[in-house]
Amino acid sequence: MTLETFLISLEALGVIAFALSGIIEAARKKFDLVGVVMVGAIAAFGGGTLRDVLLDRRPFFWIEQELWVWLLIAVGVSLPFFFRARHIEISEKALLVPDAFGLGIFAAGGTHLALVSGQSPMVAVLMGVITAVVGGVLRDVLVNEVPRAFHDHQPYAVIAFAGGWLVVLFDFLFLPASVSVLASASVMVLVRLLAVKYGWELKRWRFL
Amino acid sequence: MTLETFLISLEALGVIAFALSGIIEAARKKFDLVGVVMVGAIAAFGGGTLRDVLLDRRPFFWIEQELWVWLLIAVGVSLPFFFRARHIEISEKALLVPDAFGLGIFAAGGTHLALVSGQSPMVAVLMGVITAVVGGVLRDVLVNEVPRAFHDHQPYAVIAFAGGWLVVLFDFLFLPASVSVLASASVMVLVRLLAVKYGWELKRWRFL
Amino acid sequence: MTLETFLISLEALGVIAFALSGIIEAARKKFDLVGVVMVGAIAAFGGGTLRDVLLDRRPFFWIEQELWVWLLIAVGVSLPFFFRARHIEISEKALLVPDAFGLGIFAAGGTHLALVSGQSPMVAVLMGVITAVVGGVLRDVLVNEVPRAFHDHQPYAVIAFAGGWLVVLFDFLFLPASVSVLASASVMVLVRLLAVKYGWELKRWRFL
Repeated sequence: MTLETFLISLEALGVIAFALSGIIEAARKKFDLVGVVMVGAIAAFGGGTLRDVLLDRRPFFWIEQELWVWLLIAVGVSLPFFFRARHIEISEKALLVPDAFGLGIFAAGGTHLALVSGQSPMVAVLMGVITAVVGGVLRDVLVNEVPRAFHDHQPYAVIAFAGGWLVVLFDFLFLPASVSVLASASVMVLVRLLAVKYGWELKRWRFL
Repeated sequence: MTLETFLISLEALGVIAFALSGIIEAARKKFDLVGVVMVGAIAAFGGGTLRDVLLDRRPFFWIEQELWVWLLIAVGVSLPFFFRARHIEISEKALLVPDAFGLGIFAAGGTHLALVSGQSPMVAVLMGVITAVVGGVLRDVLVNEVPRAFHDHQPYAVIAFAGGWLVVLFDFLFLPASVSVLASASVMVLVRLLAVKYGWELKRWRFL
Repeated sequence: MTLETFLISLEALGVIAFALSGIIEAARKKFDLVGVVMVGAIAAFGGGTLRDVLLDRRPFFWIEQELWVWLLIAVGVSLPFFFRARHIEISEKALLVPDAFGLGIFAAGGTHLALVSGQSPMVAVLMGVITAVVGGVLRDVLVNEVPRAFHDHQPYAVIAFAGGWLVVLFDFLFLPASVSVLASASVMVLVRLLAVKYGWELKRWRFL
């Protein structure tokens, strides 16, 4: 497996994780089938698309990898039958695991891509945060909720931010890209899962 | 009339239809005059602008055709006097007719534009859906509502999606662009109007 | 001080003013620390970023002036301690003063930038409006409110629109760019402050 295939497979995992989060959130809000697929697509592709627009990268990753669009439509259309057949209840908690994977993978991948395209470390880290967070923010805005990433007092974007600096560090140490991205992503997923499990909290600003 | 003039006139009709939908929705929500014009402009230009950003087309269609911006401002400022003078009540139903025209014209035009600029059929169809749907979604988000296109269980985006494949088919059959766009748009408008009239419904996902 | 430094300093003032408006609004809504910084960043950079995307200007102004990103993070993280230490209450009114400065500076600067990059007067004025208004609109959407600029019946975007034509006029009279931008921005700030002080109102459309 070449490096590029590897990074693409990782990105695919992130896409599926975020698509699921969008699909489930829209279904909970009683969106129709089209709305569910759309919100899934926007949750999955929103962050990476904004990153690509900001970095002026064309073609977009989902235009380059059209397969994932087909896959997403297939998943979106078939999932409800699957769930109905098995009487599976999706709890809000269950959603947090794929979401943690999406967070780590998108943040690490986005930071790495921006570094490679010549951005400064700070801008690259911000691109990683954008890649990881924007899809979920758009998902929450579309279902008319306050963005969970900004409001739930759990470390989320801050993990993407800190983890992005890990990518910068690993690149600075001349580690191969695959190691750098995979290691940083793993750390972020782990920290996020721990944060969820033990209920770590960010302080709220109480000055108002 | 050349092909280009023809396509521009069609697009203008779509712009006006969507602008009206934004103007009326903002007025119902008691937005001020500026807000009404702004929401109208975003409903009208949002989808095409995002399509142009994604395809990296510059100048934007509304920069190229500055006339429409002036027209929109004129319509936005004069419309309330017109309505007040005649005691016209705009029902929610009445809105659905121009909206159906906007849907068909934007979806067909957007798909065609993307095909011509060398995108694959699937990406071109998605660009058509984006052109047709994003303006309305932004309109609904700005008035702080759940996007109607994702939530009302009526076929809307799905018509843009299916109709886009019609454009692809007609192009594949080497029909002239004007015929291809006009025929596809007409089919979409017709199907949408029938869907509204007979209350066709999309299924909701009931797995949650 | 060269012209460029001057314009950048002005823009920095606008960035800080809008960042404050986002930080305060998010803090009022009990967002967590990350959310507060993010909403501040989006309020500050949203309008200019959209302008740069639409005009295809790269690198973005906040990539070029990375210093401001660091500054924003520092302000965002330190501000709550500052406020808590002094028991300062931020009233909604207090917010309107920095916001008026942001409005004038962003509208004048955005219009000037678009004119210089060769846009027509109308498009340039619209770019000024976008630069000045979009950050605040995104801020309001993210805290799940109707955009204040569209709804509060106060002149806001309309000041950016009229003031933009002032920039066009001054450029047409061959005034130096710094004079043109500074004078127009000052007029806009003044008019906005007067509008706030004396409660000037835009009419609402009453046709529905």
